Amino acid sequence: MEDSFQVRPIGVIRTPYKDSAPYQPLAEAEGDFRLVLDPEWESALQDLDRFRYIYVLYWIHRITRPVAVLAHPPWAEGKAVGLFASRSPVRPNPIGLSVVQVLAVEGREVKVSSLDAFDGTPLLDIKPYVKDLDSKEDADYGWLEDLPDKDHLLLHIKGIPHDY
Amino acid sequence: MEDSFQVRPIGVIRTPYKDSAPYQPLAEAEGDFRLVLDPEWESALQDLDRFRYIYVLYWIHRITRPVAVLAHPPWAEGKAVGLFASRSPVRPNPIGLSVVQVLAVEGREVKVSSLDAFDGTPLLDIKPYVKDLDSKEDADYGWLEDLPDKDHLLLHIKGIPHDY
Repeated sequence: MEDSFQVRPIGVIRTPYKDSAPYQPLAEAEGDFRLVLDPEWESALQDLDRFRYIYVLYWIHRITRPVAVLAHPPWAEGKAVGLFASRSPVRPNPIGLSVVQVLAVEGREVKVSSLDAFDGTPLLDIKPYVKDLDSKEDADYGWLEDLPDKDHLLLHIKGIPHDY
Repeated sequence: MEDSFQVRPIGVIRTPYKDSAPYQPLAEAEGDFRLVLDPEWESALQDLDRFRYIYVLYWIHRITRPVAVLAHPPWAEGKAVGLFASRSPVRPNPIGLSVVQVLAVEGREVKVSSLDAFDGTPLLDIKPYVKDLDSKEDADYGWLEDLPDKDHLLLHIKGIPHDY
């Protein structure tokens, strides 16, 4: 098997997050979230606006910490979990994945709902999020369900504003 | 921005598909589907078995066709759609994404439900699929809803066996 493969950006992600970004997309986040594709890919956006949701894949480019096999998620109250059981951005292959809503496709830009990525993040791929194939109604919260402060954490996961 | 980034396999995907693979995971597919991680990543699987579903990211390594901005999905009855509105494996960055069930974690292997990848596919990442964050109950079928043979296609998407 080959040792490594090359990925090349197909465009850039524009967000209001210049110096800090949330851990997950926030339902109430304000501002402009856009996928700006390189001109050669404009036609490849045809029909994308027929989907309510899409997957956005990107290169998590501003990581400086070394990769570790255990992660300490900010929500997990000090608990360490296996890296692959976490959504930590510090991964052997720092490929970010977000599910976002398509708001509009205009030329080579896709206006989307909020996305937890820094402004300027290299865009790698867009895939349609298809009902049944991708939406699993019996999904669970995994180890998050074991945490004493679970109910509060779920507000963060759902992006619901709360003041405690 | 950098021109390109390197990804390195963290392991390999084992499936029964040596020479042909389905377009999407089949609910009724038989056989052994496993993610076999390189030894250094065994500890990073801790807590993964607490999740019902995970994302599997992989390098689609057996593509020989050139990338085109329009795709002709096998289900779409000749219709051409924008590449990013399709799940075609022929993409500028051939990163495959599947949602699978975790059946068991044993040492450095994850036994999973069926996966539409060839045996020997390089594994890039595993992420937990988290309720609410990833399961969108109001997702739709996009342009698939426009097709005259929609009901039949949905059986394929859902992986439901049928003989017509």
